[in-house]
Amino acid sequence: MKSVYMDHASATPVREEVLETMLPYFDLHFGNPSTVYDMGSKIKLTIEEQRAKVAKLVGSGTEEIIFTSSGAEANNLAIKGVALAWQKKGRHIIISAIEHHSVLNSARFLERMDFEVTFLPVDAQGLVDPERLSNSITPETIIVSIMHANNEIGTIQPISELSAICRDRGVLFHTDAVASVGNMLVDVNELNVDLLSISGVSLGAPKGIGALYFRDNLRLMPIIHSGIQESGRRGGTENVPGIVGLGRASELSAEELGEKISHLHELRDRLVVGIQEQIDQVKLTGHPENRLPGHASFCIEAIEGEALIYMLNQEGICANTGSACASKALKTSPVLVAIGIPPDLAQGSIVFTMNSSNRIEEIEYVLEKLGFVVKKLRSLSPVWRKKYGKQKSAKKHAK
Amino acid sequence: MKSVYMDHASATPVREEVLETMLPYFDLHFGNPSTVYDMGSKIKLTIEEQRAKVAKLVGSGTEEIIFTSSGAEANNLAIKGVALAWQKKGRHIIISAIEHHSVLNSARFLERMDFEVTFLPVDAQGLVDPERLSNSITPETIIVSIMHANNEIGTIQPISELSAICRDRGVLFHTDAVASVGNMLVDVNELNVDLLSISGVSLGAPKGIGALYFRDNLRLMPIIHSGIQESGRRGGTENVPGIVGLGRASELSAEELGEKISHLHELRDRLVVGIQEQIDQVKLTGHPENRLPGHASFCIEAIEGEALIYMLNQEGICANTGSACASKALKTSPVLVAIGIPPDLAQGSIVFTMNSSNRIEEIEYVLEKLGFVVKKLRSLSPVWRKKYGKQKSAKKHAK
Repeated sequence: MKSVYMDHASATPVREEVLETMLPYFDLHFGNPSTVYDMGSKIKLTIEEQRAKVAKLVGSGTEEIIFTSSGAEANNLAIKGVALAWQKKGRHIIISAIEHHSVLNSARFLERMDFEVTFLPVDAQGLVDPERLSNSITPETIIVSIMHANNEIGTIQPISELSAICRDRGVLFHTDAVASVGNMLVDVNELNVDLLSISGVSLGAPKGIGALYFRDNLRLMPIIHSGIQESGRRGGTENVPGIVGLGRASELSAEELGEKISHLHELRDRLVVGIQEQIDQVKLTGHPENRLPGHASFCIEAIEGEALIYMLNQEGICANTGSACASKALKTSPVLVAIGIPPDLAQGSIVFTMNSSNRIEEIEYVLEKLGFVVKKLRSLSPVWRKKYGKQKSAKKHAK
Repeated sequence: MKSVYMDHASATPVREEVLETMLPYFDLHFGNPSTVYDMGSKIKLTIEEQRAKVAKLVGSGTEEIIFTSSGAEANNLAIKGVALAWQKKGRHIIISAIEHHSVLNSARFLERMDFEVTFLPVDAQGLVDPERLSNSITPETIIVSIMHANNEIGTIQPISELSAICRDRGVLFHTDAVASVGNMLVDVNELNVDLLSISGVSLGAPKGIGALYFRDNLRLMPIIHSGIQESGRRGGTENVPGIVGLGRASELSAEELGEKISHLHELRDRLVVGIQEQIDQVKLTGHPENRLPGHASFCIEAIEGEALIYMLNQEGICANTGSACASKALKTSPVLVAIGIPPDLAQGSIVFTMNSSNRIEEIEYVLEKLGFVVKKLRSLSPVWRKKYGKQKSAKKHAK
């Protein structure tokens, strides 16, 4: 049986070059960077070199990068860190309705702490309306958080347009770029953002490492309080091997991005066209053009997403239904609800996320198996038979 | 030149057996444990197996362990997680004056959030007085946090006595066991605590992983909000390789603890006696008996600790002065102040922390070089010459 992995948004193997670079930092160079003897100072220096590499990938200054334990922690630090440090200025924050759980649940936490949160709706393609954002800003607004690219539907927001509105009004702007960094060009100055979250996983670095870009010594309340690590904004002994991994992965990503993007475009376009040709009553979710190059997401009518994933798994294919963090928790994805997909159709969500290692033959394999599996599941579906079965059998009888 | 590392409380190399067990989880078994296909479920299972190993090491139930990114994060989650979840019950917390920065600064953060914090003094050996703790508890008190063993002075607190007082009064008890787990027997039921922090680093697991024991489904506000990971108490994709490392390290630690403790005792006792024999005007800090087996800490008069560390570094010896997190930030250690060491003497702090890999010959080497370095530094010290120099030269002349 073939094995095809197309859930790179959930997890991706650590790249060989990355792991190799990390290895000496587990044992040979194991010191604590806060110590004053040689081994400690050398490791401190190594950390700063990695910081520069991550900064270069997103076009920021070196001192504007804080290492965290994940993209989720970076999102928490951005939202809560700003809210708690700037609460004297105001207690209103704005996020979109399709943010990742780490942004959404940080905002909900702040609601319990007597902050007011506005959840901006999105259109059918997942886009935030700039005018609507502008109208939601009040003198109390301290931060707006709108994700760069959505992990479930692939839609890319017009961040620079949205952030310009906030800058004009003196409101900080954060973007969760976990799904975009490594998959498209991300530049903090072009995007004109004050904070931007990065995950190692998206870059082929290991789990357990992420980073937050924060503009120009911006005041932030830590969420992990401890010593003076990370310019006092994130306590705890630095995850040195993870940081080294993220540095190397950033370097590689910067070098290979152009080639990766055209490869992903080709794979995705073939997958999208193929699925639409092959399967009836299937809806591409998210924006048809402004979407991540390696991201293809659909809702398939009269299909239960989880059953679909299990059956594809039998064929050696790994894909996702909704986001990994939610997939065991929620029956209906809030993202799909937000773009107006009816709950029944939202059940049939499937998401393919590709990376450089995927090949065009894998797409053909997925198309073949997906067609087969959908047909099988529909043949067992009373909903499908009720709605389309008779009609088809009617057609058959008419012939 | 010899190389002798005696700063294991700051950092320790990842054990070979641990790294070997972790390696396949970087690439071969890279899946996201929240996904529903086989690879995800298998990794979810692996995480639960590791949780059982950590639980076994500290005598807890498997479901009572939460994985975090560090001991510092575990401390933050315990203190802030309880304070924010239980604030309707009361807004008073008690910590000792010698807590790690992650506890201390979590408490200070809560002060800014309108919690009241009592800082319990300690005696000259670093012990908290049970009666004083009892008298500090008010109807508003929700949590007491007192560290098991102190990383700077080695003192072990009478935790079960202190926690019993809290249990009687219906107050939750947390202990930071980062310095003790792996270096002595730690059992959550014997200690009778509700929360206990663990760091991977102390066990020969990598940086970037820690754990929190929390009793019996105790309510906790997450500090990293996201999905449903870690029973909803700690969001973000799990650091699978780190968790596997911590599991393996816990297993090894449980097997080897008895032997390790006697080895460390022997090394430490030789070092303590040797230093006191060899150096004038030196004070052992912390408790002479109730202290970590591999921990020897001193204040040496008329010596500047950082200069001492640099000069020992020239001889290939790594030791510490104060805690690693503070060593670049603070001139006088709050822990040494709390046990009543005068600021001048506190400058001459040196801390040796050993583990199984250290050998008795290394102790002899350290004794030889330390004697030499202290003599040299004192020969350059106006303070020393003023106080003791004349007297000694007088002695010489008298002969």
